[in-house]
Amino acid sequence: MEREFGFGVDIGGTSCKIGLFDKEGNLLEKWQIHTHRENCGEGILRDVAESVIGKMKERTISGEQVIGIGVGIPGPVSENGKVGRVTNIEWDQKDVAGELRELTGLMVRVGNDANVAALGEYVHGSGQGRKSLIMITLGTGVGGGVVMNGRIIHGANGAGGEIGHIKVSEDEIETCGCGKTGCLEQYASATGIVRMAKNTLRTDSRPTILKEEGLTAKDVFDAARQKDELAMEIVERVGKILGKAIADVASILDPSIIVLGGGVSKAGDVLVDVVTKYYRKYTFHACENTPIVEASLGNDAGIYGCMGMLLTE
Amino acid sequence: MEREFGFGVDIGGTSCKIGLFDKEGNLLEKWQIHTHRENCGEGILRDVAESVIGKMKERTISGEQVIGIGVGIPGPVSENGKVGRVTNIEWDQKDVAGELRELTGLMVRVGNDANVAALGEYVHGSGQGRKSLIMITLGTGVGGGVVMNGRIIHGANGAGGEIGHIKVSEDEIETCGCGKTGCLEQYASATGIVRMAKNTLRTDSRPTILKEEGLTAKDVFDAARQKDELAMEIVERVGKILGKAIADVASILDPSIIVLGGGVSKAGDVLVDVVTKYYRKYTFHACENTPIVEASLGNDAGIYGCMGMLLTE
Repeated sequence: MEREFGFGVDIGGTSCKIGLFDKEGNLLEKWQIHTHRENCGEGILRDVAESVIGKMKERTISGEQVIGIGVGIPGPVSENGKVGRVTNIEWDQKDVAGELRELTGLMVRVGNDANVAALGEYVHGSGQGRKSLIMITLGTGVGGGVVMNGRIIHGANGAGGEIGHIKVSEDEIETCGCGKTGCLEQYASATGIVRMAKNTLRTDSRPTILKEEGLTAKDVFDAARQKDELAMEIVERVGKILGKAIADVASILDPSIIVLGGGVSKAGDVLVDVVTKYYRKYTFHACENTPIVEASLGNDAGIYGCMGMLLTE
Repeated sequence: MEREFGFGVDIGGTSCKIGLFDKEGNLLEKWQIHTHRENCGEGILRDVAESVIGKMKERTISGEQVIGIGVGIPGPVSENGKVGRVTNIEWDQKDVAGELRELTGLMVRVGNDANVAALGEYVHGSGQGRKSLIMITLGTGVGGGVVMNGRIIHGANGAGGEIGHIKVSEDEIETCGCGKTGCLEQYASATGIVRMAKNTLRTDSRPTILKEEGLTAKDVFDAARQKDELAMEIVERVGKILGKAIADVASILDPSIIVLGGGVSKAGDVLVDVVTKYYRKYTFHACENTPIVEASLGNDAGIYGCMGMLLTE
């Protein structure tokens, strides 16, 4: 019997997104289940297995018809598939592939969620048809993923794609979540942009429509779009820091395309334009015309990438 | 008839190094021919073909016994094998693989020389047995190569591994060979180290054994080893700039090992130790223990890597 289906499972701190795909990687159906984080998330994989098996029964799909399950995890996954400490759901050194294979009888591939999202954009999103891609995910933190010739660079220590912790400043006095200082994440994440904006509001007396209370990264971009001088300067600073970090990385990886994803990337052209300007200024001349684009799959990038791992690895 | 031999050809501005290998990648014999750069190097590939065919005749090896020829070029080679402008030997957009295949009837793979040297260290040198590697070549310039899962990252524009043009300073006033300013190459190459040392000698009146006339990078490292204060400060500065650049790149690639090659790397421990110190300070915590080591193949890295392309790509 031909293997004609695959499952993509993107495990997050709040919910697990699950997709059923055909063997070409087309999404047939998607749904979510709650992530039960109680007792160090001991029930999560059992819940996933039940949901997958339930769907197979509902559609009368046998195990022989399934290629496997691709799983995205919000933590480090090394190139041998070992899952390290996942703070978000309190897993520590879990053999996700082994346990889920045991529970379902299906082949399992595991990847880090940001890496898997990059693969999703590569196979089905903004990077479709390209040979290689770097994706930078600008959310609460800054994550990323590198896909070369259809394969995720997982990294020897599961840190592949961790662009958020490139050191971009020697002068930073606040500490990053990683324990060091001056990381890209401290400036280019939603949290980082708000932090920079608040610091500016406290020290700069120029008139602005920005208000410190309840300030979001979206407010900053919206104000910049309305030509608010202070907001435009903050966006310029974010673009410079991010554009230079991407340039550093692109100089050595020379990807076919660079994709910006995550909540902050919804700022659209106002962000992409300024990042591109500084990227071109700083990158190696041969890479100056590499396109920088917005991600196109949104929250579905993860499940597409999970399925992608089954088809490319 | 089994294919049991392969040729590695490392084309340089002065000479072409050629190696005959068995099918396991062991070097059986190596020799050099002169690189005739006259008339835009039009005779180079013909000379290489003659030398390879001559060796086959000498050893009574037939075309059916040869896997192919791997070629390293001192210029950009994109992921589709296209060779861009090679200033060193005045080639422009040459179809090296096609021409050499035509001349020899053998399968041909082409790669950039620094990338190929990285693959050489990966298959047979300091990176043997590792899954992935970044090599930084510190010579007259700063080159580099990235090998992931046995494959060179050539790059969409042939700029894969171009770590020498990461921007490490905003304050530089002199221009790099690439046309921009503040590139790693301006500080960490042999030329860059001498430049920094001369600038220091002109502005710093402390006693030192360094002399401006005829100064080499080796003099600086030798003086540092003898605890010359000025020389130690210059080595510290080189190590900091280089360690941070490697840290930036390792944060996203998370290689199994980092290899320093080229003439400057012969400085040995005095360089490796200071680079490692700053690498650990700046890199993402998961990558802090990644070893940084000296290359071990010297000038043979290229031919080993050329042969490596035949076995891994």
